[in-house]
Amino acid sequence: MGELYSHTQTAAHAEALTVAEVRLTPILIADPPLLNTQGVHQPLTPRLIIEVVTADGTVGVGETYGDTKYLELAKPLGEALPGRPVSDLNGLFTVAEQVCGEPGDVSDSVDVGGLRGVQTADKMRLSVISGFEVACLDALGKVLGLPVHALLGGKVRDSVEYSAYLFYRPARHPGADTPRDDWGAALDPAGVVAQARRLADTHGFASFKLKGGVFPPDEEIAAVRALAEAFPGRPLRLDPNGAWSVETSLRVAAELGDVLQYLEDPTSTTARMAEVAARTDVPLATNMCVTTFPEIKDAFTTGAVQVVLSDHHYWGGLRNTRELAAICRTFGVGLSMHSNTHLGISLAAMTQVAATVPNLDYACDSHYPWQTDDVITSRHVFTGGRLTVSDAPGLGVELDRGALKALHQRWLDDDGTMRDRDDAAAMRVAEPDWQTPSVPRW
Amino acid sequence: MGELYSHTQTAAHAEALTVAEVRLTPILIADPPLLNTQGVHQPLTPRLIIEVVTADGTVGVGETYGDTKYLELAKPLGEALPGRPVSDLNGLFTVAEQVCGEPGDVSDSVDVGGLRGVQTADKMRLSVISGFEVACLDALGKVLGLPVHALLGGKVRDSVEYSAYLFYRPARHPGADTPRDDWGAALDPAGVVAQARRLADTHGFASFKLKGGVFPPDEEIAAVRALAEAFPGRPLRLDPNGAWSVETSLRVAAELGDVLQYLEDPTSTTARMAEVAARTDVPLATNMCVTTFPEIKDAFTTGAVQVVLSDHHYWGGLRNTRELAAICRTFGVGLSMHSNTHLGISLAAMTQVAATVPNLDYACDSHYPWQTDDVITSRHVFTGGRLTVSDAPGLGVELDRGALKALHQRWLDDDGTMRDRDDAAAMRVAEPDWQTPSVPRW
Repeated sequence: MGELYSHTQTAAHAEALTVAEVRLTPILIADPPLLNTQGVHQPLTPRLIIEVVTADGTVGVGETYGDTKYLELAKPLGEALPGRPVSDLNGLFTVAEQVCGEPGDVSDSVDVGGLRGVQTADKMRLSVISGFEVACLDALGKVLGLPVHALLGGKVRDSVEYSAYLFYRPARHPGADTPRDDWGAALDPAGVVAQARRLADTHGFASFKLKGGVFPPDEEIAAVRALAEAFPGRPLRLDPNGAWSVETSLRVAAELGDVLQYLEDPTSTTARMAEVAARTDVPLATNMCVTTFPEIKDAFTTGAVQVVLSDHHYWGGLRNTRELAAICRTFGVGLSMHSNTHLGISLAAMTQVAATVPNLDYACDSHYPWQTDDVITSRHVFTGGRLTVSDAPGLGVELDRGALKALHQRWLDDDGTMRDRDDAAAMRVAEPDWQTPSVPRW
Repeated sequence: MGELYSHTQTAAHAEALTVAEVRLTPILIADPPLLNTQGVHQPLTPRLIIEVVTADGTVGVGETYGDTKYLELAKPLGEALPGRPVSDLNGLFTVAEQVCGEPGDVSDSVDVGGLRGVQTADKMRLSVISGFEVACLDALGKVLGLPVHALLGGKVRDSVEYSAYLFYRPARHPGADTPRDDWGAALDPAGVVAQARRLADTHGFASFKLKGGVFPPDEEIAAVRALAEAFPGRPLRLDPNGAWSVETSLRVAAELGDVLQYLEDPTSTTARMAEVAARTDVPLATNMCVTTFPEIKDAFTTGAVQVVLSDHHYWGGLRNTRELAAICRTFGVGLSMHSNTHLGISLAAMTQVAATVPNLDYACDSHYPWQTDDVITSRHVFTGGRLTVSDAPGLGVELDRGALKALHQRWLDDDGTMRDRDDAAAMRVAEPDWQTPSVPRW
C-alpha cells in the first residue's frame, strides 16, 4: 500500500513540481525618513516580488531587492526556470551563474541600503537567487503540504524573537506629496527613548537596536545611556555602520560596555574590526565585513567578529543561511539576523529559517514595523516581540494581488528617481551639499 | 486550484508523515579478512538496519553500526519517534540527546572499525542518529514522491565516482566454518596490484586507495610504487590510519609525493598532522582527526588537513554532511568520502548526498565491493567506477526481507563473539599474542 501511494504521488508531483511560469513584479513601497551614516531612506524604495508558478497552478512567492541592477539579474534567471523542477534549489546557483552575467558597473557602488561595503556581481547575484529560492520553497511546501521550516528539517522553536529597530529620523520627508506617518522626530536621546517605548508598547520588543553613525559618537552614547536608564537590564545594541575609527570604536565600547549586548560594525573592514575586537571585551557583530562565505575565513581566524548578523537576501537564501549557522556553531561565533527594508514575504522567510536554527543566539532585527505597505493579505503581528512560526504549507502567507498591483503601478508611474535606492541622493533633497561621508567618519 | 490541491495534500500528508513504528534489526554480515594497523576484520561484523514506518505504511530504511553499544543507543531513540513527524530531522538531535543517555563505558574503547580515535558518547550518538535520519529521509521521499537528493536541494551531478579500496589480506579467515571468497592473498606489491586490477576490471574504478599501516612503511611504499607502474597516471592514496610518526610520515610523503593524490591520516592527532602538513606539499586527508564539528576549528586553523573524508555515519547524517561540505568550501579544504564496512542502504545514502555536494573533489571510498551480503533486492552496480544517482522516491532501494531475516538469524545465533567488532580480537585468532599496536607504530 505504501508503494502504491508512493507511485501515485510521484506521478502527481512530477507535474506539480515543474516550474511553469515565473512572474517578476517590481514595486515601490513607502519608507519613513530613517537616517543612517550615508544619508536617509527615500520616501519610496524598490522591492522585487517573485512568483514561481508550478504546472498545477501552485504559486510560490519570494521577495528581494528591486533596484534596476537586481531586476537586470532577475530577468534572465526567471526566464531560465520554466521546465525545471521547483525542488532543484542547488541548481539555482548553477543556472544563475550561467545566465545572469555581470550586472552593469558595480565597482563604484555601495550596496543599496545594506551599507554592506563594496558591491560585487557575486553579492548581487546571491541576493537575487535568495528571492527565487524562497519562492521555490514556498511553492514546494504548498505542493507537498509542508511548511518551509519542514523543508529545512523542521522547527526547533515555535516562535522567533525580534528586537526593536530604532532610528534617528526627522518627522517627515521633505516634499509635498511624500508619505507621512505619526511617529514624529527622533533626533536626540529623548526622541530615541520615546520611539523605543512606542515600539515596545506596540509590539512587545524586549531588546533594542539603535542605528547609529548619524551623529557624533557622544550624542549616540548619550542616546544608548538614556535607553539603558529607561529600560534597565534590556539588551541594547548600537550600529554605526562602520563609521568610526578603531580608536573611536574602542572609546564607545569602553563607555557603553556595561549595557551593550554587542556593538555592531563599529568600524569598517575585517582588519579594523579585528583591531577593535583584540582590545575590548564587548562582542562585535557584523553584517558588513562578513556577508558572503569567502569573507568568513579571514574574519573568524582573526577573531574580528563574535556575532554574524545573517541575512538570507545576502547569503543566497534560507538553505545558505542554515549553512552559515553551521559554520558559526563550528567556530564558536554567535548568530542573529540582519534586516534591510522588507515586506511580509521576507519576514515570513526569515521566521521560517530562524525557527530551524538551533544556535540563534539573539533576537533578530527587522525593519518591518516601519513598513506600512505590504503585499500579503494578513500582516504579521508581533506578540511579546515574537512571531509565531507558521505551520501552514509553504511560507504561510497569501499574496494580496490588489496591493501588489497598486505598488507596481507606483513603480510604473515613477520617473526613475525612486527606482534605485540612494540614501545620499535622498539626503540631498533636504541638504543639497550632502556627500556620502568618507570612512572613518569619526 | 493550487490552493485546493495544496489543502488536500496537507490532509493526506498529516497522516502519512507521522512515524507509526520503528523497527531495529541487528544483523551479522560476512566480511573478508581485511588487514589494518589494529588487526583484521572479523569473519562476521554487525550492522543495524533501521526501518521507520509512517502511518500510511510507507517504510523508510537506514543503516548504521550494529555493535552492542550502538544498539543500546538506538533502542530509546526508536521508541521516542512514533507520533513525531518524519520530516522533523532537526528534532532527531534534540530527542537523541534527551533519551539516549550515556552508552556504557566508552573511555577505553577505540571506535569500531573506524580507527577513528577515542570513542565518545557524542560520536556514537551521531552515528546512531545518522541511521535514523537516512530512514526518515527515505520515508519522507517515498511519501512525497521525491528522491532523497531532491530533499537535499537536488543533485548537481548524475553519477558519483568511487575509488577502488585495496586491502592487504590473507586468503582466508582462520577457522573451519568462516566465510570464504576467491580473492586470494594480497600481502606484497604483486598481490596488491593483482587485487587492484581485478577491482578495476570488475567495477571500472579509476583511482586506488591502499589501506596501510599493516607492514613497515618501506613495504607499503613499494606497493604504491607498484600500483603507480601498473596504473600510470591514476590517482593513488595510502592510508596507514595514523600509524606513523611525524618523521616517518614526512619520509613517505617525500618518497611517494609524485604519485599520491593525497596521504590519508599518516599520523595520529591534529597536532602531528599539522607538523607533517607544514613540511610537505602532499595534501593530507583525514577521517580520524576531524570526524566531528568540534574538531574542525583547530584542524582548519592550523592547516593540519587539506581534505576531509566525510562519512555520514560519523557526522550525524546526510544534512550534516552537507553542512560539513559548506564548511570545507568556505575554508578551502577539499572533501571526499570515507567508508567503513557497509551495505547497500548506506551506499545509496552516500550516493544521494554526494550527488548534491558541489565541492566533492575526489572519488569516494567504499568497502561495498568487499561485501557479499546485502539487505536490498538489487545490488548497486558500479559502471566505469561510478554509481548512477537514483531519481526514484527516497533512496531508491528496496529492502530484501528474506535476506534481512537470514542475517538477523545469524546475529541471533551468534554466541556474542561477533556482535561487537574487534579487529584486535580477530587478529588474535591467528596470532594469539597480538596486541593493538601503540601509536606511532613506525
